[in-house]
Amino acid sequence: MVQILSGKAVAQKLKQDITVEIDILKSKGVIPTLGIVLVGDEEDSLSYANSAKKRCETLGAGCNIFKFPAGINQDDLEKKILELNENRDIHGYIIMKPLPSQINEKRIAEIIDPAKDIDCMTPKNIAKVFAGDNTGFSPCTARAVMEILNFYQIPIEGKRAVIIGRSMVVGRPLSMMLLKQNATVTICHTRTRDLAKEAKRADILIAAAGKAEMVTKDMVSPGTVVIDVGINFKDGRMVGDVLYEEVEKLASAITPVPGGVGSVTTMVLLKQLVETCRK
Amino acid sequence: MVQILSGKAVAQKLKQDITVEIDILKSKGVIPTLGIVLVGDEEDSLSYANSAKKRCETLGAGCNIFKFPAGINQDDLEKKILELNENRDIHGYIIMKPLPSQINEKRIAEIIDPAKDIDCMTPKNIAKVFAGDNTGFSPCTARAVMEILNFYQIPIEGKRAVIIGRSMVVGRPLSMMLLKQNATVTICHTRTRDLAKEAKRADILIAAAGKAEMVTKDMVSPGTVVIDVGINFKDGRMVGDVLYEEVEKLASAITPVPGGVGSVTTMVLLKQLVETCRK
Repeated sequence: MVQILSGKAVAQKLKQDITVEIDILKSKGVIPTLGIVLVGDEEDSLSYANSAKKRCETLGAGCNIFKFPAGINQDDLEKKILELNENRDIHGYIIMKPLPSQINEKRIAEIIDPAKDIDCMTPKNIAKVFAGDNTGFSPCTARAVMEILNFYQIPIEGKRAVIIGRSMVVGRPLSMMLLKQNATVTICHTRTRDLAKEAKRADILIAAAGKAEMVTKDMVSPGTVVIDVGINFKDGRMVGDVLYEEVEKLASAITPVPGGVGSVTTMVLLKQLVETCRK
Repeated sequence: MVQILSGKAVAQKLKQDITVEIDILKSKGVIPTLGIVLVGDEEDSLSYANSAKKRCETLGAGCNIFKFPAGINQDDLEKKILELNENRDIHGYIIMKPLPSQINEKRIAEIIDPAKDIDCMTPKNIAKVFAGDNTGFSPCTARAVMEILNFYQIPIEGKRAVIIGRSMVVGRPLSMMLLKQNATVTICHTRTRDLAKEAKRADILIAAAGKAEMVTKDMVSPGTVVIDVGINFKDGRMVGDVLYEEVEKLASAITPVPGGVGSVTTMVLLKQLVETCRK
């Protein structure tokens, strides 16, 4: 019988822990407050920001949305970022992407204060993830996967982890986080020959390709732990990178979509927000 | 018949290219000059520094060794590093490790000017290697491996590369550099179960474990390209991480030790030195 790795359960546990931490911080006069930098009027970003704000309020944390016009120039945006670095009422912040084309995103990332960089955009935090140094912050989605594995006490050490996808927000950082936990890690991608054969070798299979239902039954060995990071829309419904109906029959454990990794990501962001207050 | 991947041939070709570049720079009044920071009197570091200096001179580049007492404190060493950043006569520099125990190596790495960081110690250059961004500098040994693969036109795209070792100077950066070239990359280490089985799947096998002659014939499939990054001393002679006599009978191509990767590393450093002058 397949074990459903519910992201909601993980998020619930994280929420409890975070609430306790926030209460302690509040008793010391600190209200952990998230900043969200929003440039322009992109619908998705706006809706994410509003939902994150509600989430913060539910937990007793603060949230300020810093909204700037789509036409803002590089210098002005950099000034706003530097102000956020100095703003003692904002403990950590994220910048919604994509930024408008006139903005040099790399230069923006470089001026974020690493101590407030709770979505791991700065070179300093990225380098720490690469080095397996836990003193920084990780990309929230990659860490959400680790939180799920830890919550369900899935053994990682010595296991073969196969990751499909090599993005800077999931595949690459996750490969280093699994390596840090002593997995033997294989990174696959669009140029991998015989992907099915590679995937079938996995004890832990991470689907982070961003392609709807691309992991089918012929890519999964019986007993595999399958983590589906994908969020895709197909025929009006949300689906992952895994063809769930097929793969759940083979997997020993699997994350659903929705209700899997995606449910944990925002809570990881808030966990990292609380961590900034401790550092 | 096994192909011997001579590092010396690669170094020779790099030397030619670098000499041409140095001549061009000199005609513009620039003498590319390497700085070597040496703290204390460690025999090995001193001998490396002196040999690098000779190498520079042979090529027409400059080299200054900055020697500081073993007892130097953090503040003083940081001041010296900041001076090197400002020193317009030094185009790139390296810091010999290990540093004495009173020195916080991480803080030193963070203040190096990334534009002069030709051995990839700064978070900014490390993050670039991780992201597959070629605009920075790579750890010299990892890049030496890539230079060898390129020189001998070993196909990388779609190939299975298996790396034994996960250090920040070879295993991790090399995994990202091979990924960038579209290899399917597996990272193995001391906690990998059934290392032989993993290694046998390699089209390109990189031995970077730092353990003398640990890669034996039962870990290599016929036709594998074997790159030996190890430099170990055993019974008074230099040996790699690969048991050469056994593995050369199976490999399609193999780097010798000595005369393999190690022969290329210093030339890569000088290549990166010349690149600093172009940037």
